[in-house]
Amino acid sequence: MTSFAAWAKSAQERTEAALARCLPAASIAPERLHDAMRYVCLGGGKRIRPMLAFAAGAAVGAEVEKIEPAACAVELIHVYSLTHDDLPCMDDDDLRRGKPTCHVHYDEATALLVGDALQSLAFELLAAPGLYADAAVQVEMLHLLAHAAGSRGMCGGQAVDLASTGKQLELAELEFMHIHKTGALIRAAVLLGALAAGRLDAAARARLEHYSKCIGLAFQVMDDVLDAEASTATLGKTAGKDAAQGKATYLTLMSAKDARAYAQELVEDAVVAASHFGARGERLADIARFIVERSY
Amino acid sequence: MTSFAAWAKSAQERTEAALARCLPAASIAPERLHDAMRYVCLGGGKRIRPMLAFAAGAAVGAEVEKIEPAACAVELIHVYSLTHDDLPCMDDDDLRRGKPTCHVHYDEATALLVGDALQSLAFELLAAPGLYADAAVQVEMLHLLAHAAGSRGMCGGQAVDLASTGKQLELAELEFMHIHKTGALIRAAVLLGALAAGRLDAAARARLEHYSKCIGLAFQVMDDVLDAEASTATLGKTAGKDAAQGKATYLTLMSAKDARAYAQELVEDAVVAASHFGARGERLADIARFIVERSY
Repeated sequence: MTSFAAWAKSAQERTEAALARCLPAASIAPERLHDAMRYVCLGGGKRIRPMLAFAAGAAVGAEVEKIEPAACAVELIHVYSLTHDDLPCMDDDDLRRGKPTCHVHYDEATALLVGDALQSLAFELLAAPGLYADAAVQVEMLHLLAHAAGSRGMCGGQAVDLASTGKQLELAELEFMHIHKTGALIRAAVLLGALAAGRLDAAARARLEHYSKCIGLAFQVMDDVLDAEASTATLGKTAGKDAAQGKATYLTLMSAKDARAYAQELVEDAVVAASHFGARGERLADIARFIVERSY
Repeated sequence: MTSFAAWAKSAQERTEAALARCLPAASIAPERLHDAMRYVCLGGGKRIRPMLAFAAGAAVGAEVEKIEPAACAVELIHVYSLTHDDLPCMDDDDLRRGKPTCHVHYDEATALLVGDALQSLAFELLAAPGLYADAAVQVEMLHLLAHAAGSRGMCGGQAVDLASTGKQLELAELEFMHIHKTGALIRAAVLLGALAAGRLDAAARARLEHYSKCIGLAFQVMDDVLDAEASTATLGKTAGKDAAQGKATYLTLMSAKDARAYAQELVEDAVVAASHFGARGERLADIARFIVERSY
């Protein structure tokens, strides 16, 4: 078996290549819009969500070619949300993945349309006729992704985040926000990757749901720790911004040491859930461990 | 048979009621986001696209209950695009459907998230598991809507529109823009309405495609005429803005009289296409005629 590092690199490369194929060429009109869509999607990113899709698919025996469109669709939703998040009316950020953000490199109107068009493209990709043998499962996947992206998922989490800036949240409120803002899409990545194999039995689904919940929270806890501790150069995005903007983070509720311990505990829970899939669940466990060990 | 006015009113009321049901209640968290989503979607609008879906569905014998989610999904995409269009970085408009625009009534960040969440909701609604007996047709509907909304459809048309502001376009360029900016979603409304009945035969599909193309252009020609001639009070949105912003319109290429004649010609062509469906195509013909006769 290859090492996790080698597997992760190949998943990232596969995602990059698949995104490059599904995004319209920059030579197709409207050229500037397509160029900007490629700018934000290609050449970087941790690709955590696609990795989760590949790992969850592997856990239930899905073919990697079948997981690929699902992995890309989730990543397109993620990248669209980053593009809109960086806009002046939201986080007003200049740097993302080590490059100028879309509205800085192009302009605000283009960044707005890039996000809008990437969201459409995610659904277009996943709704390709004949992509999955069972069209009813394909409909379920589309429904799951749309719900995860919307006002009771990621968009809703962002709205709560906006409303809470400058306020002291309690742990339960902070977790409500994160379950929506990042948890919903992480759950979608895991479930879509697994559904690429076809229908899921209730036990497998419950394990994947639990795994997703644990790593979603662990990921956010570690994001807060890293935002406070790492440098802008390491992160590829502006560090220390959460605190500067008065945003509620885990570090306003607990020490960095306690936050790391909490993330560790969540990850151990996730590893147990992954172990029920036997050797095929190993990549899910690896990703969970990677989340607490990463430095960017 | 009821008059067109009565039919149109009932289609509008049906759309309003269905949207009110599918939008999350303003009492569900995040409350402000849900309140704003309802604000932009409910209580107005010509509902041309839902009417087209109902009329096209009627032309091929679809049940009205089956057309309803398709009609709403298209309208949600339309309303999201209006909400983003009105933002300061795009058209910077204060008035829409006779009310303050979303970013004026709420704030820019909320208007951004409202548009994003409405796009997700459109796909969530249309991807409801079991909504259509033939899941493969449902997947085709989702694919069609996503393509129409994206960078090779509506978003792409908006990008061309932005790039062309202050430039003199030729007729072919202007029509390229409109075929994407408004034509793509009008086509989606017609085809989705018809697909609510199940698979479409090639002849019916070709007629509906031709009908859509004609009324899409006629609608835009009349929009330009009305923008130049009608008052803000009649339109419910700021009149004369296109000329003030140096936007390319049909009236920069032809007189208002010639534009009206061109629209009339397109509509007659659409009426011929509708006539192939016999009495069941009557509402499609009515809508085509309404497009050239409307004053708002």
